[in-house]
Amino acid sequence: MRLVECVPNFSEGRRAEVIDAVRAAIVSVDGVYLLDVSSDADHNRMVITFAGEPEIVGEAAFRAVEAAATLIDLEAHNGVHPRIGAADVVPFIPLRGVTMAECVALARRVGERIGRELALPVYLYEQAALHPERRNLAVVRRDPYEVLRTTIQTDTSRLPDFGPALLGKAGAVAVGAREPLIAFNAYLNTSDVQVAVEIARAVRESGGGLPYLKALGLLVNGMAQVSMNVIDFRKTSLFTILEAVKGEAARHGVIVAHTELVGLIPQSALIDAALSYLQLPPQTRDLILEKRLGEQTGDYHEVLFE
Amino acid sequence: MRLVECVPNFSEGRRAEVIDAVRAAIVSVDGVYLLDVSSDADHNRMVITFAGEPEIVGEAAFRAVEAAATLIDLEAHNGVHPRIGAADVVPFIPLRGVTMAECVALARRVGERIGRELALPVYLYEQAALHPERRNLAVVRRDPYEVLRTTIQTDTSRLPDFGPALLGKAGAVAVGAREPLIAFNAYLNTSDVQVAVEIARAVRESGGGLPYLKALGLLVNGMAQVSMNVIDFRKTSLFTILEAVKGEAARHGVIVAHTELVGLIPQSALIDAALSYLQLPPQTRDLILEKRLGEQTGDYHEVLFE
Repeated sequence: MRLVECVPNFSEGRRAEVIDAVRAAIVSVDGVYLLDVSSDADHNRMVITFAGEPEIVGEAAFRAVEAAATLIDLEAHNGVHPRIGAADVVPFIPLRGVTMAECVALARRVGERIGRELALPVYLYEQAALHPERRNLAVVRRDPYEVLRTTIQTDTSRLPDFGPALLGKAGAVAVGAREPLIAFNAYLNTSDVQVAVEIARAVRESGGGLPYLKALGLLVNGMAQVSMNVIDFRKTSLFTILEAVKGEAARHGVIVAHTELVGLIPQSALIDAALSYLQLPPQTRDLILEKRLGEQTGDYHEVLFE
Repeated sequence: MRLVECVPNFSEGRRAEVIDAVRAAIVSVDGVYLLDVSSDADHNRMVITFAGEPEIVGEAAFRAVEAAATLIDLEAHNGVHPRIGAADVVPFIPLRGVTMAECVALARRVGERIGRELALPVYLYEQAALHPERRNLAVVRRDPYEVLRTTIQTDTSRLPDFGPALLGKAGAVAVGAREPLIAFNAYLNTSDVQVAVEIARAVRESGGGLPYLKALGLLVNGMAQVSMNVIDFRKTSLFTILEAVKGEAARHGVIVAHTELVGLIPQSALIDAALSYLQLPPQTRDLILEKRLGEQTGDYHEVLFE
């Protein structure tokens, strides 16, 4: 079975009936595997993770955007997360037997359809971007909904790739294709947020640190937290990242108390971390009992990303 | 599918035709999944790993013992590994949907059949032992083949559980049931074997170290090696073990240069090591993408040992 994952973010994290309706729109498509629904009332935002054959995932994504655009009114929305629309971002991720080029094509087809059938402005981002600067999602979301309402008509850099250059109550949609992302947060044994801010600056790519790593320093429940997005764990591993964070923490006289993941993680990211920590050679992957067994039974599902 | 694993060791690691014949005896049983064949000419020994439904694995194990007993002559055998027979040890391991009690019963049935049909002395060991002292395989193999030839007739502690108290050229067979075992070796950046010997003594259970850990200090290719058997990785994890070895190594002013596995490893042992090293909470297991997907598709095969 070929598998694409979709992890859309919606600007609603409070009204259970809206969360349920968007979820129902997704699972109304036969062959969709619903993997996770996470809503956050503080941020008034939810993330749904699902997977399936490319066309099935594309259809489910379209129906979810349609439901969200009908039920979520950005004029009435509040929350601390930056957002441009009811269905804010819709990324497609290749999981198994699917290339990134196919996910790019899928994102563009779904984006075009959203613009045409739902009359929503659509911006293509990351690997699916038609404009190079839109490879960076932060550029696409530069103007939040309230600002974009005006600039979409006045600023040519805000012209959508599909749909009208006009913002209704459902806002706009960013549709993209990307590698699997890991949200990995490290909590420090200090309440001094400045320490987390400085560690984040030192380890992230934009500060000359590790490639494929974004990082911010935050204060969460009274603990300084280095909040990280791992853009490509096959290029920069969790092991490399945690070693770097520990090294910087030591310079500030603090330690990593514990860590957390937000959202799902590909199994191979954990296997990689284990092999690195244990100082085992990479070919040890071939000694995994379940992998050997799956080669015989034909149904091994570890290592989606070989 | 219910799954039992069997990892028999045979006293032949050189003659390809014998290795092939034993392998062929195993795969002659329909439904057997052959997972690994490892032979070692120096030790003149081989290990075959296979799995399947309990009765199928029992039948394949019997046929393998029969082939080995026909083709391997202990009178003509040399090698440095202690051994009592052509088919030296035959352990059954519960993998999925099978209890240890079922593996014990299977080991006893197969052992009884080997004694009766092949007229070989059989000792039941570990969880399958009928005599408490035989839970320790080292006790069963106290007398190597050349000594056992005599003691099996003169020493009541050597009386087999099944089969005749008489040793032919195929020797005796130890048949048992146990948890999955991990063979994990740590190489030190020194050629001083005494350092490995002392670290092994400090970390192993018999030296008052970590429970469920056996360890020896060896010199391998000019490097001091702490050679370890992890008897139950769910009780004493690879993370705990490597931290202990590193701590003892530091006391001797050396480091672990790299490690290796000998044979297969259950995936969950690596996942456990990753979560421990990364300081992630145990419930992070539930965030593994493939696990969520498998719950939907019904064919997830990670975590054989939940």
